[in-house]
Amino acid sequence: MGKDTAMDLYQIDTPSLIIDEKKMQRNIDRMADKAKTLGLTLRPHLKTSKCWEVAKRQLWTPQGPATVSTLKEAEEFAKHGVTDMIYAVGIAPQKLPRVQQLLDAGVDLKLILDNVDSAKIVSDYCREHGSEIKILIEIDCDGHRSGLQPNDPAIVEVARALTDGAKLVGVLTHAGGSYDVNTPEALLERSRGERDGILKAAKQLRDAGFELEIVSVGSTPTALSADDFSGITEMRAGVYVFFDLFQAGVGVCSVDDIAISLLVTVIGHQEQKGWVITDGGWMALSRDRGTANQTTDQGYGLVCDVNGKLMPELWVCGANQEHGILARRDGGLLKREDFPIGMRLRILPNHACPIGAQHPQYYVVEDGVEIKAVWDRFYGW
Amino acid sequence: MGKDTAMDLYQIDTPSLIIDEKKMQRNIDRMADKAKTLGLTLRPHLKTSKCWEVAKRQLWTPQGPATVSTLKEAEEFAKHGVTDMIYAVGIAPQKLPRVQQLLDAGVDLKLILDNVDSAKIVSDYCREHGSEIKILIEIDCDGHRSGLQPNDPAIVEVARALTDGAKLVGVLTHAGGSYDVNTPEALLERSRGERDGILKAAKQLRDAGFELEIVSVGSTPTALSADDFSGITEMRAGVYVFFDLFQAGVGVCSVDDIAISLLVTVIGHQEQKGWVITDGGWMALSRDRGTANQTTDQGYGLVCDVNGKLMPELWVCGANQEHGILARRDGGLLKREDFPIGMRLRILPNHACPIGAQHPQYYVVEDGVEIKAVWDRFYGW
Repeated sequence: MGKDTAMDLYQIDTPSLIIDEKKMQRNIDRMADKAKTLGLTLRPHLKTSKCWEVAKRQLWTPQGPATVSTLKEAEEFAKHGVTDMIYAVGIAPQKLPRVQQLLDAGVDLKLILDNVDSAKIVSDYCREHGSEIKILIEIDCDGHRSGLQPNDPAIVEVARALTDGAKLVGVLTHAGGSYDVNTPEALLERSRGERDGILKAAKQLRDAGFELEIVSVGSTPTALSADDFSGITEMRAGVYVFFDLFQAGVGVCSVDDIAISLLVTVIGHQEQKGWVITDGGWMALSRDRGTANQTTDQGYGLVCDVNGKLMPELWVCGANQEHGILARRDGGLLKREDFPIGMRLRILPNHACPIGAQHPQYYVVEDGVEIKAVWDRFYGW
Repeated sequence: MGKDTAMDLYQIDTPSLIIDEKKMQRNIDRMADKAKTLGLTLRPHLKTSKCWEVAKRQLWTPQGPATVSTLKEAEEFAKHGVTDMIYAVGIAPQKLPRVQQLLDAGVDLKLILDNVDSAKIVSDYCREHGSEIKILIEIDCDGHRSGLQPNDPAIVEVARALTDGAKLVGVLTHAGGSYDVNTPEALLERSRGERDGILKAAKQLRDAGFELEIVSVGSTPTALSADDFSGITEMRAGVYVFFDLFQAGVGVCSVDDIAISLLVTVIGHQEQKGWVITDGGWMALSRDRGTANQTTDQGYGLVCDVNGKLMPELWVCGANQEHGILARRDGGLLKREDFPIGMRLRILPNHACPIGAQHPQYYVVEDGVEIKAVWDRFYGW
């Protein structure tokens, strides 16, 4: 659909995923400014949108740097000319031929790993195939998931296990634990923990004689909360591009910053229960209930009118596969006449990453209901 | 990929979604036999697989009958010659032109609604466009979501509001509340409640002079638990084709019946925590945590070896976007040497419908690791 086609949010079918481009750009600018203030490079994580039209607005240069969470993302963004990428999930041996294809195509794709076995597997692959593969060692700064502890001597063992074409270029960590806190003080502390952890790991390696060109940290909450990332060369962040209710619950954005929403249509009511039923169920919203354990449980999302104006007394209190159930939080009954059949509403989601994956495209608006563009997105691995 | 290509579960990339065709066929046969025993038509719900290769094995004839949850499904299955379909989500006015296109193409697509306003909207559309649209009134047999109460006089009002080409052909209900129970006695009771509710609604309409050709009930648990569906003309069910851990928790299948699993690769360990890390995170498993409120919380899934043999002491205790965390349920530590880097495992999911939506295709095996076929699936609306 060209931009000339006069389509608006009353005309397209539902459920459909909507981007508010003005809010998205504000979010992009905010993170870019933060990186500049901290004096380091931003390597945006492109996993959230899986969409070139979004990604290209986040990148500092058309070639990157960028972060990806799947080889599919690397392949798709490489088609658009992105070359400087880190695939930020520990490499599985079976994926090395796909990595090699990207390297052969001129993509400077860097891998991560956190153990001697993986280092040997990559080194063996390089020896057998004459490959040169750049590697970052993954560090665990807060017990969140993968990575070696900053003071674990195994870090140096892993570095030593990288031989032949497997070349150590840096260290990387992800402060996923920052998702569990929600005060500026705690977030600042997490950002310092992330910094101190990665610098401790880097020092171990440098003391052992290894040169590191990349010292990479990243999570949206710590990136936006950091006061001093001295010694860090770059930060990664992804979900900031759209933000979501979970990030609002963490405290790093307001509900008004959320640039992504699901357009739905009212299809029924249960008057005695005070429910309004829409065609936006969990298949369209995703099954993410990440706010359930935050201070404020947002159900399956918050409700806005078609223009994006929040109706603060409402929430999506439940969802079936293709049905969303809207109700008042205070238990009062929603009236049929206020939500007539066919009425359009927009739902702010718990989590931008999984809701995106449910949809083949984004409809782009700016401050209103007119659709400026339709952007394709991909999925799968 | 042709069937001649000798590929197996050690060779394809991960995460990938696997169908065990033998188990799937056993599940299909079981539901078909149950419908025959009850003496009624099976109208399988095709929302679970969104895949023609699966759907065609469920259908009684190549033309149907079938149930769909989106117009996209109706359009995709119509391409393959399916004509007799019910779109089993209350119709949104904006969707009527797409419905009309299907009717124009010769598809006998039936719609559902549960209120006078929607009945008038469809009737107005029929009058303005010279359309003929078959309608079923949705009945709420257990307070689960949409539909009118069986004894609500509004049922007759809705029927009377159907004018012009909008033609009442039946009543429909979905015993979604059956998902909340887990004993044969309670399931039998739910199936009787579903039957009694829909028959009460049908009697109201027939007493008022309306003819009903379809009296439709449906949910996998009640369909498999019913002892007497006299008066019902057809039953719908969907998730039975694959089953999942949630249905096993309800008690209508065993874990061994689950025909769908996620193939993953071990990419790391956290030895002190006893974790094994795989490349199967919630993006590949979906965010569904439906078993969390059942008697046994299955985390993000149960773990099998590459051949599909259950490792009963394990579960997926956590997941990030592209990381799955495996652990022992008893708190014991998994050993690195037992789960080497590159090892392949298969994860049984909580819920077959959302995990399917994350994947562009299914890899089909039968009792082993050889891939017999690759089946495309679609997504979106």
